[in-house]
Amino acid sequence: MISVGIIGGTGYTGKYLLEFIKQHEMIAGYTIYANKSAGSKLLDVFPELLGVIEDKTIQSVNNLSYTHDLYFVSLPHGESLKYIPTLLDKGIKVIDLGGDFRLDTKELYNEWYGFEHTSEKLLSEKVYGLVDIKNNKIENSNFISNPGCYPTSIQLALIPIIKKYSDNIISISSVSYSGASGAGKSAKTELLLAELDGNVKAYNINKHRHQPEIEQELTKVGMNSPFAFTTHLLPIARGIYSTSTIHLNSVIHEDEIKEFYLKEYANSKFVRIRNIPPELKWVVNTNFCDINISAKNKTVVITSTIDNLIKGASGQAIQNMNKMFGWDETLGIIK
Amino acid sequence: MISVGIIGGTGYTGKYLLEFIKQHEMIAGYTIYANKSAGSKLLDVFPELLGVIEDKTIQSVNNLSYTHDLYFVSLPHGESLKYIPTLLDKGIKVIDLGGDFRLDTKELYNEWYGFEHTSEKLLSEKVYGLVDIKNNKIENSNFISNPGCYPTSIQLALIPIIKKYSDNIISISSVSYSGASGAGKSAKTELLLAELDGNVKAYNINKHRHQPEIEQELTKVGMNSPFAFTTHLLPIARGIYSTSTIHLNSVIHEDEIKEFYLKEYANSKFVRIRNIPPELKWVVNTNFCDINISAKNKTVVITSTIDNLIKGASGQAIQNMNKMFGWDETLGIIK
Amino acid sequence: MISVGIIGGTGYTGKYLLEFIKQHEMIAGYTIYANKSAGSKLLDVFPELLGVIEDKTIQSVNNLSYTHDLYFVSLPHGESLKYIPTLLDKGIKVIDLGGDFRLDTKELYNEWYGFEHTSEKLLSEKVYGLVDIKNNKIENSNFISNPGCYPTSIQLALIPIIKKYSDNIISISSVSYSGASGAGKSAKTELLLAELDGNVKAYNINKHRHQPEIEQELTKVGMNSPFAFTTHLLPIARGIYSTSTIHLNSVIHEDEIKEFYLKEYANSKFVRIRNIPPELKWVVNTNFCDINISAKNKTVVITSTIDNLIKGASGQAIQNMNKMFGWDETLGIIK
Amino acid sequence: MISVGIIGGTGYTGKYLLEFIKQHEMIAGYTIYANKSAGSKLLDVFPELLGVIEDKTIQSVNNLSYTHDLYFVSLPHGESLKYIPTLLDKGIKVIDLGGDFRLDTKELYNEWYGFEHTSEKLLSEKVYGLVDIKNNKIENSNFISNPGCYPTSIQLALIPIIKKYSDNIISISSVSYSGASGAGKSAKTELLLAELDGNVKAYNINKHRHQPEIEQELTKVGMNSPFAFTTHLLPIARGIYSTSTIHLNSVIHEDEIKEFYLKEYANSKFVRIRNIPPELKWVVNTNFCDINISAKNKTVVITSTIDNLIKGASGQAIQNMNKMFGWDETLGIIK
Repeated sequence: MISVGIIGGTGYTGKYLLEFIKQHEMIAGYTIYANKSAGSKLLDVFPELLGVIEDKTIQSVNNLSYTHDLYFVSLPHGESLKYIPTLLDKGIKVIDLGGDFRLDTKELYNEWYGFEHTSEKLLSEKVYGLVDIKNNKIENSNFISNPGCYPTSIQLALIPIIKKYSDNIISISSVSYSGASGAGKSAKTELLLAELDGNVKAYNINKHRHQPEIEQELTKVGMNSPFAFTTHLLPIARGIYSTSTIHLNSVIHEDEIKEFYLKEYANSKFVRIRNIPPELKWVVNTNFCDINISAKNKTVVITSTIDNLIKGASGQAIQNMNKMFGWDETLGIIK
Repeated sequence: MISVGIIGGTGYTGKYLLEFIKQHEMIAGYTIYANKSAGSKLLDVFPELLGVIEDKTIQSVNNLSYTHDLYFVSLPHGESLKYIPTLLDKGIKVIDLGGDFRLDTKELYNEWYGFEHTSEKLLSEKVYGLVDIKNNKIENSNFISNPGCYPTSIQLALIPIIKKYSDNIISISSVSYSGASGAGKSAKTELLLAELDGNVKAYNINKHRHQPEIEQELTKVGMNSPFAFTTHLLPIARGIYSTSTIHLNSVIHEDEIKEFYLKEYANSKFVRIRNIPPELKWVVNTNFCDINISAKNKTVVITSTIDNLIKGASGQAIQNMNKMFGWDETLGIIK
Repeated sequence: MISVGIIGGTGYTGKYLLEFIKQHEMIAGYTIYANKSAGSKLLDVFPELLGVIEDKTIQSVNNLSYTHDLYFVSLPHGESLKYIPTLLDKGIKVIDLGGDFRLDTKELYNEWYGFEHTSEKLLSEKVYGLVDIKNNKIENSNFISNPGCYPTSIQLALIPIIKKYSDNIISISSVSYSGASGAGKSAKTELLLAELDGNVKAYNINKHRHQPEIEQELTKVGMNSPFAFTTHLLPIARGIYSTSTIHLNSVIHEDEIKEFYLKEYANSKFVRIRNIPPELKWVVNTNFCDINISAKNKTVVITSTIDNLIKGASGQAIQNMNKMFGWDETLGIIK
Repeated sequence: MISVGIIGGTGYTGKYLLEFIKQHEMIAGYTIYANKSAGSKLLDVFPELLGVIEDKTIQSVNNLSYTHDLYFVSLPHGESLKYIPTLLDKGIKVIDLGGDFRLDTKELYNEWYGFEHTSEKLLSEKVYGLVDIKNNKIENSNFISNPGCYPTSIQLALIPIIKKYSDNIISISSVSYSGASGAGKSAKTELLLAELDGNVKAYNINKHRHQPEIEQELTKVGMNSPFAFTTHLLPIARGIYSTSTIHLNSVIHEDEIKEFYLKEYANSKFVRIRNIPPELKWVVNTNFCDINISAKNKTVVITSTIDNLIKGASGQAIQNMNKMFGWDETLGIIK
């Protein structure tokens, strides 16, 4: 049994971390730390949890105790950096759900995030926790950088085809649509229901911070073709739908590709290969990633879906924790 | 031909005023005044109007010109009060779309709005512009107080039955549901799509400012029974659905009530008496109010629907303007 | 450990029964029976359950095995009646989620459902399973009639105030809004998303079949005032929001009423008394009923919320099962 | 002044044709023909039009009168074919809003629509009415085939870049999302709000009938690169959002491309080139197509939006009619 801290635990991600932790048989206790809502009661922040969890006071991030075995860090860009080095120095395990350590170099942070990264050493020491892709480093790591939501949906869809067929690929174009919870819980006019109801919009075209993350990781498995990535906002709360179009030099039969995906994910309890294009609601409120492969002539279209708050954040983090501690990876996630 | 000013013209109400004015054959020109967005271009505030209206610069409310024949005032509570007395003193016509003059007494403003009203004289001089109820004062008025959105939907539903059957009524209970645009365009976490999607909530129970407005007006037509009014937020952008339950001392036949409504609204081009409960979408983006009367034994249920931004605000204001100037009341509204 | 049958298990209600049963530690096995989808695989009907439950073939209702300890019956009106008498004759326990046994007399079925009820004896033998109201009969019953969704939300909101204050009540008016899943899964043009998106409508005014059910039960606890009930369709999938307005002869202080509710529901793990009007999403996907009481002068407004498919159907049915078998009532419901 | 017939006028497309016709100053009268709803009153099919249009009886398609100057035909695949040759033989003008004449060859109909086309001659005589692309044939034509909704959004986005830069293009991948009204008004379980609320799904991957239509037309303007097209369903009623990703051999500056688009559409009153990615709601309920071009390195992303029922169907049809008769193309569309 362990105890955990959640730093920045009062946003959308924090809520689901809490729900998983509450039902996790290996977690004995937890503390919630936050900035603005420090001092508030947990049930005032999450009134829906009345009767589900015990109430407790939210602690200030400024008074971190360093008494827990593991800390989940879920803070805005540039904030994780302030706390994680100290935690790691004290020998405490950390899973960072923010973007501060996902990229591998200072240069990428300068270019895409616009800040000077101060922990270059940790950038190379961290393990990128795309947990459904086999990676022995996770088990032995003290520090996991949890992947971004879009990157999770796109990498799980593309890694097998790139691994096996990269030289046949002319170009890859990924288009993702996300529910509005992906933009977080802070009040912005453009995120009001009265603005978004019945509405859709592309945003951050050619400049979304998840693009270098995806390119960095796909390049590691062999991608050598042009890649593009465009994000959109859906008028619903949750879920990501990603559609990746791959143009090939020569025909590959759909069954052949699908068979390879089935093999690659044979031991992955949270990746489901589908015979028809997935519906988003099949994965909402779950830790699953659904993937469908459709090929015709020299075109392959791969659709993939996740819940942005679960598989794209808290669910994947819990799964990473389970691996770090050597537990069954479904613990606390599937009942 | 006249020209008009819109004070506070960059909110949701302002947009529809603009659309009506733009297509109104008796309006030659207009100026938009605002606070925060003064200096901005109109098409930056309303990009959807590109190709529909000419762009122009939004003027500051602090630099009112007093050169227009009529001003529509659409400002937050307590703000209209600053400008309207001066406009009226200069002999300019005013239609106020806010709540600063709807109630008849200073005492009610103290109790329900929590401020000291400084224009008691105007409270009694204003004409309450519930325009679909015959009222000769509108034609001769320089100053119309445009009714609230909920009060419009409920008064149009209840005035006939109260006028004719008040002594038979035991109690009236009105329940209204409104789209989120009714809460305005300012950024609040509780109005985010990620919070409201798939959600519903009652709010301001027993303390909504539209309650004294409704009671004041229904009492004038004879209401002498207990009345209650409860408001809710819908997870959609537009429209109000009001359901009023009336318990009677003795049975009245549904056909008799319905016939009276048809007679009362025989000359009202924007009130439609329906044989079945109305669907909200029938009135969204229109200036109509749909009403259905269902009676069984000693229970009468009256459902009524409006678009909160049109019949509940800008459409009714345009209709009031048409009456003030002696024009056909549908001018600029129905093509 | 027991095994259960689900008759009519492929609708919306069936899905949640399945999810509860799957995670219920006292249920060893189950069979799904259906009409149209007999012969299909369970995972073709519920593809979202891939990786969550084992696939199995759906059996025909015509081939009931009578081998289970308990049957949940979830069939259209008039259909349950065909199977339940035989099941009970064989000494098998039954929980009926349909409307065939909720009313107490043949006459009410003639009037409201339009059919001749053929099991008058069972109408009086069944136990009406409004499980959050203390009722020792449930523990000893073989046959529970599970309450309707609207009646659950309204009775839990009104029973305490009627029990204690019935003589002070002038009238009660309940208005309910339900998500579209309440209308079931059969294809009707009026239920298309393209029709309902952004739409709201009242329906079955003064003739909804849940009205006599509510009146029958509220009368048993002392209601002697006029009561009305109006239902509406929301443009969302799930949840019921009920608002009940009560006019009183004399003032009762809000705190006094609230205190009585807290006492009445002190042992109810699934009823939560709220200090503010509940948000619908707090209960969606849970077995909770949230209730708020707001009183001012002689008006009391009680808002109550449930998930129509869980507390209003499958969740309440599981809770009834838990009581029938003497288990903790939260088993399989709260993790 | 002319009079028109609408064949198949009771679906979603029919409604907007009706609204445009009603406010069109050059149309003196009209008749609605339909199959299933023949004999019904127009206001029973479209109750929202009460007070807006005069009621009339819907005529049977079997009793076509041939007395109108122009017929709009809006029928399911394979149905238009039955009526259009006769209308044209009688010298009557026709605008077909269905898919029966959009493709140029019998072979394509065999392959993609699965039927034997019986009017090969008309396939080559029809004019494909993508009206915002300059085409003198429209003015002189008696028979317009109105483009599909997706093809309208994608062709307007891609034609300029293909015309000017086709040899620089490596691949094009278009991804479109459509509101559910695009699937029509017939009752299907998968289109229920209870199924689609909060849901998204890709469909007809690599086999949508609009794909050969787009490829046929883009090839005519010079496309010589691989092209793919994937369609998705949005949980909203209206609008299409198309995102086209183009990989280039060599960099082209965004400003250069944008300038060319502005020039190409300089005289198009319904195409708006945007500096930021368009929001879908800007075009819903309008005849506009909004287009944004974003280029970085060798990637160009073009987003384009339309209202599927207006610019993608009835609005474009009215615009085609205006051109056929030599009227201002905005007549009846922009007030």
